[in-house]
Amino acid sequence: MLVRELPEHLGRAVTVCGWVQTLRLQRRMQFVLVRDHSGTVQLAHRRGGQQDLLEQELERLTPESAVRVTGRVVADDAVRLGGLELVPEAVEVLGRAEPRLPIDAHTGPEQRLDWRFLDVRRRPQAQLLFAVQTTFEAGLRAFAQAEGCTEMHTPKLMGSASESGAEVFELGYFGRSAYLAQSPQFYKQMAIAAGIDRVFEVGPVFRAEPSYTARHATEFTGVDVELAWTAGVEDVMDFEERMLTHALALVAERHGAEIREHFGVEVTVPQLPFPRLAMAEAQQLLRAEGWDPEGAKADLDPEGERRLAALVQQRTGHEFVFVTHYPAAIRPFYHARSAQQPGLTLSFDLLWKGLEITTGAQREHRHEVLLRQAAEKGLSPEPMRHYLDAFRFGCPPHGGFGLGLARVLMVLLGLESIREAVFLFRGPNRLTP
Amino acid sequence: MLVRELPEHLGRAVTVCGWVQTLRLQRRMQFVLVRDHSGTVQLAHRRGGQQDLLEQELERLTPESAVRVTGRVVADDAVRLGGLELVPEAVEVLGRAEPRLPIDAHTGPEQRLDWRFLDVRRRPQAQLLFAVQTTFEAGLRAFAQAEGCTEMHTPKLMGSASESGAEVFELGYFGRSAYLAQSPQFYKQMAIAAGIDRVFEVGPVFRAEPSYTARHATEFTGVDVELAWTAGVEDVMDFEERMLTHALALVAERHGAEIREHFGVEVTVPQLPFPRLAMAEAQQLLRAEGWDPEGAKADLDPEGERRLAALVQQRTGHEFVFVTHYPAAIRPFYHARSAQQPGLTLSFDLLWKGLEITTGAQREHRHEVLLRQAAEKGLSPEPMRHYLDAFRFGCPPHGGFGLGLARVLMVLLGLESIREAVFLFRGPNRLTP
Repeated sequence: MLVRELPEHLGRAVTVCGWVQTLRLQRRMQFVLVRDHSGTVQLAHRRGGQQDLLEQELERLTPESAVRVTGRVVADDAVRLGGLELVPEAVEVLGRAEPRLPIDAHTGPEQRLDWRFLDVRRRPQAQLLFAVQTTFEAGLRAFAQAEGCTEMHTPKLMGSASESGAEVFELGYFGRSAYLAQSPQFYKQMAIAAGIDRVFEVGPVFRAEPSYTARHATEFTGVDVELAWTAGVEDVMDFEERMLTHALALVAERHGAEIREHFGVEVTVPQLPFPRLAMAEAQQLLRAEGWDPEGAKADLDPEGERRLAALVQQRTGHEFVFVTHYPAAIRPFYHARSAQQPGLTLSFDLLWKGLEITTGAQREHRHEVLLRQAAEKGLSPEPMRHYLDAFRFGCPPHGGFGLGLARVLMVLLGLESIREAVFLFRGPNRLTP
Repeated sequence: MLVRELPEHLGRAVTVCGWVQTLRLQRRMQFVLVRDHSGTVQLAHRRGGQQDLLEQELERLTPESAVRVTGRVVADDAVRLGGLELVPEAVEVLGRAEPRLPIDAHTGPEQRLDWRFLDVRRRPQAQLLFAVQTTFEAGLRAFAQAEGCTEMHTPKLMGSASESGAEVFELGYFGRSAYLAQSPQFYKQMAIAAGIDRVFEVGPVFRAEPSYTARHATEFTGVDVELAWTAGVEDVMDFEERMLTHALALVAERHGAEIREHFGVEVTVPQLPFPRLAMAEAQQLLRAEGWDPEGAKADLDPEGERRLAALVQQRTGHEFVFVTHYPAAIRPFYHARSAQQPGLTLSFDLLWKGLEITTGAQREHRHEVLLRQAAEKGLSPEPMRHYLDAFRFGCPPHGGFGLGLARVLMVLLGLESIREAVFLFRGPNRLTP
């Protein structure tokens, strides 16, 4: 039985499993707080003297031991925890904790990561994080399935280094090399070429970049969507904004109050449509406000993204903004180009409160154009042969996006670092626990 | 609009997107079959002579080109495809296919894998496979969430080689080595130690084993469950059999008729509970039937698994069987042992029609016992330090299992090879496309 169910069992005998939170062993009474993921309950035992085996068991308890307690639920208005306590009849230690815990309330962030399991277990907001993640993901998936998406699992092992020139992880593979996929990009497009009209995938992506920021990881969970027969990139943005709104509404409904309590953040369901702003306009806006690092730049840096988001929020009240029409020079070769302005791509980033959470685009689906765009970027077609082949036999127009799950959670819960938004963080300096 | 929706639009103008399936260009009439994932429709155009641009467009079509067709839906009882056809007004080639396709109906299996996207696109049963996978997985997840599971995404990059002595993939990681997780085993147990009572994970697992059978892959999708506070391994088997039954019922309901049509297989929803058989009994049974390869063996080989499943089905009518109580010698050190028979583990494999689809167990959650069992297997604790640490500070009893998604699909659809049960197969000899 869960602690939160105890009020319904006043006067009855129950069994509760959980962890020893605090021990107060007084002269006449022994008080033990026991916590499960739903709440905390106080055990109250009156010492019975030398023959009292339960007294001895309680005396030997250590904080964070896993215990199973059988006892009677009694009302006691003096107890803060729901006005009830448990008078124990038996306490069984199922997993004994060593008496000295390696972390406490004063432990720094890196050492807390070393003992992540204890840190998560002892902090209700960390527990809540994973409940929110589960709900958010369920909301994304429910939307995707209602829209006719097929859930795919594409390989993470690739025969040649994927898409961009960015660093990839290389591994030994039966006497040759394999590479870890930096995204399901190529394979989800292959699924489109395979006649799977709408692709949804959730899976790990790997980035061998030595980035040491609060928003980068070498392995993270990507949510990927790819849609066939799109008329243009607007279809992709429409899909994403509706998908996010659906999932955030579910989070607000199920966890809004807890999120407010534990993170001090209000979950607001965004209005549709999200604001859209071409990169050129975004830069003009920022320059008009005095942001002009190193003269004219094609891209936005993190500071530019934050400022832009603040400006958009000021003007529209919206926390999200799609930045569109990135110059071709700073986008991958497979992004489709504007027919009117061939120097611009039909692509976008989605910023939420100034953090980039998505990159998306209409894809170039014509084989000859794709070859030309790859050549312009100085890419050799040979390592990408299998990818390029998918466009030779009737590939429909399509577009899609990738969403970083942990980045969404960072913004949603107001976390300062992506390290706090995942269960076990992986970075250039961290491969453990 | 999808082809299957056309009967509702008789007499009206519609737009359909799909692939050119067949061209029959006759003297007076041009017929084109266009296929989308929902069905096939015939376009019928009466040639109009030299000024007929549509005639010229149709004449230039190639099989498998991606097209967008606008036209009027007309009834024609002579047409087999639903008694209707489309009189086209415009046909636009969105993705042109080269005139010679690299595979046809006579292409062998390896070359079909080379051109998997075309193979999947052209075979309705391959399309159906991914729809079934999506539904099956949705059924598993719906059950897991209803049972209070939290969906986790644990790292695939590990700082030291994981669990068993089996081969793992090693990669370069910023000047040192990392390893790909052979399963989320250690991390899902860490989630249990982190107070996440019920863990559900779907993700890739990596096996560097040079296995060339029809049922092995170097990368596959694992469905993992781990449950805290279990009273024993029976709780784990109960959970799995109910989960599978729930998901198979959903598949039968949504796809039963199509699966019968395309795969010639009847989806039957299994009865609860599934039969259970201790390994010692299983061996006795098999020996009584004359199966005794190389004298007494501790484990079942694939032939033994098939024979056992056949015997169980003969006796109980059940396609599934849990084989339990594997000897400790052939199970990993973290499987809990029987208190009565310490040489036996509280573990199981689940066979479906003779194919192993799951390994599960109650876990040993007591730190000192775990250390002893690791030592018995000759394992050094140091590389597993972070894993073992999770048992030092109050780890509750728990158990769980891992399910191979592609193996389930193999059995469910009667496929001969795991290569047909995944989108892009990965084996020792295959890293492409």
